[in-house]
Amino acid sequence: MLALLRPIFRIYNRYLSKDKEFARRIRQLIGFTPSNLGIFKLAFSHKSTSSDKSYAIQNNERLEYLGDAVLGTVVAEYLFKKYPNSNEGFLTKMRSKIVKRKSLNKIGDKMGLDMLLSEYNPTRLSRSMLGNAVEALVGAVYLEKGYSGTKYFVIQKILRNYVNVHELESYDDNYKSQLLEWCQKNGQTVSYKLLARYKFEKRDRFKVAVMVNGQKVATADDFNKKSAEQTASEKAMLSLGILESEE
Amino acid sequence: MLALLRPIFRIYNRYLSKDKEFARRIRQLIGFTPSNLGIFKLAFSHKSTSSDKSYAIQNNERLEYLGDAVLGTVVAEYLFKKYPNSNEGFLTKMRSKIVKRKSLNKIGDKMGLDMLLSEYNPTRLSRSMLGNAVEALVGAVYLEKGYSGTKYFVIQKILRNYVNVHELESYDDNYKSQLLEWCQKNGQTVSYKLLARYKFEKRDRFKVAVMVNGQKVATADDFNKKSAEQTASEKAMLSLGILESEE
Repeated sequence: MLALLRPIFRIYNRYLSKDKEFARRIRQLIGFTPSNLGIFKLAFSHKSTSSDKSYAIQNNERLEYLGDAVLGTVVAEYLFKKYPNSNEGFLTKMRSKIVKRKSLNKIGDKMGLDMLLSEYNPTRLSRSMLGNAVEALVGAVYLEKGYSGTKYFVIQKILRNYVNVHELESYDDNYKSQLLEWCQKNGQTVSYKLLARYKFEKRDRFKVAVMVNGQKVATADDFNKKSAEQTASEKAMLSLGILESEE
Repeated sequence: MLALLRPIFRIYNRYLSKDKEFARRIRQLIGFTPSNLGIFKLAFSHKSTSSDKSYAIQNNERLEYLGDAVLGTVVAEYLFKKYPNSNEGFLTKMRSKIVKRKSLNKIGDKMGLDMLLSEYNPTRLSRSMLGNAVEALVGAVYLEKGYSGTKYFVIQKILRNYVNVHELESYDDNYKSQLLEWCQKNGQTVSYKLLARYKFEKRDRFKVAVMVNGQKVATADDFNKKSAEQTASEKAMLSLGILESEE
C-alpha cells in the first residue's frame, strides 16, 4: 500500500516544494505572501509560452496592461508630491524617464526577474520581457492589495531600491547636444536641414534631416522644428550605434 | 460707523456668495462638498490667465498631469474588470477611445464645464480646455478623496453619465474602411502605394501613401503596412475634411 502511494507523494512534494520556493521568492520581492499565488505565476508567463494565443488570460498581458496604468499613476503622484514647485512639463519628463521601456527593463534586471521568467518560459528571454514583468508584477500586487498597498510596494520596493530620482533630474536626454558632443569627439561635422514645412491638422509641421559629414543619417517630423531635430538626432544616434535601442 | 463698514460688508458678501455658488456647482458635479475649494478653483484656471507663467502652481496644469494619470488608471481597471475575457489589445483600444482628447472634450462639454471655465478665464475657450478641465477636476478630486473616492467619482459621475461603453465597443475606428466607404459614395477611387520599406532599430518599417483619384493625399510610416495604411487613411480623411480634428 505504501509502495503504491509513494509516487503520489513524490509528485505532491515536488509541486508543493516548487510552489513554496516560488512563494518565498515572491515574498522577497514584494514584502508579503500573496493569498493568490496563481496571479503571480501568471505575471511571469509570457504569451509565447501560453498554450492558447487567442486568449490573453493565460499569460501576463492583461496584468501588464493593468500594472502599466497603476505604476504610471503611482510614479505621477510620487513626483507631484516630491516636487511641489515644479511645472507639469518637468513632472511629465521625469515620469517618462522612470517608466520608459529601457528604464523598466533595467529595473526588472536589477530585481532579478530574469530568474523567475526563465522558470516559467522555456523560450529565450528578451530584454523587453523584463520591463513587461515589472508591470505585470505591479498589476498582480494591485489585484491583491489595491491602490494604497501598491503605492507602498512601488515606492518602497522599486523606486527606493532601483531608481535614483536625483540622478534622473540631471540626466541628459537632449539628443541634439549628445550627438554634437559625439561628433566633435570623433572629428565629424553635424548639421540640420529643413526638408519640408507643411500644414497638418491646421498646424505647422516640420520635417528635418540630420546630416553627419554632409550625409543624411536620419529624418523626423514634428509640430515644432526643435522637437523634430531632437527626434532626428535620437534616430541618428541609434543608427550610428551611439545609443542603445529602447526595445 | 455703519456707513463706514458698509463697503466692507458689500465686498465680503460678494466674494462669499460667489464662493457659495461655486461650491454649490462643484457639489453638483462631484457629489460632495470639497474641504479645499481652492484646489477646485485652480482646476478651472487655465495657464493663459495665470499671472506668472513660469510657475504651473497657479494654474491647472499640475492637476491635469495628476488627473490624467488617475483617470487613465480608473478607466483601465474598470475595463479590466468589465471584460474579464478580453485581451490586452482590446482593453487598450477601449481605454484610448474613452480617454482620448476628443472624447474628454465631449465629456467636459456635457458636464457643463464651459460655464465654470468661462468664469475663471477671461480668454476665449478652446475645445481642448474642456478635456483638460475634466482631467484637472479628477486630479482635484484625487487630492481630496484619494484613489477609491476618485474611482467612485469617475465611474458614477463620469462613465455612467457620459460614456456609452457598449456603443464604443462597436465604434468604427477603421479609417481605411471609412475612407473607402466615403470614396465609393462620392464616386472617387482610393488606392495605397508602398513608397518605401526600410530598417529602423533592426525592424522593418513601411512608408505608404493614400491615393485618391490617383493623387497622393497623405503618407504615413509604421512598423507594419496595415498600421501605416490606417494612419495615412486617417490623415487623408482629415485633410479631405471628412474627419474632424482631434484637437
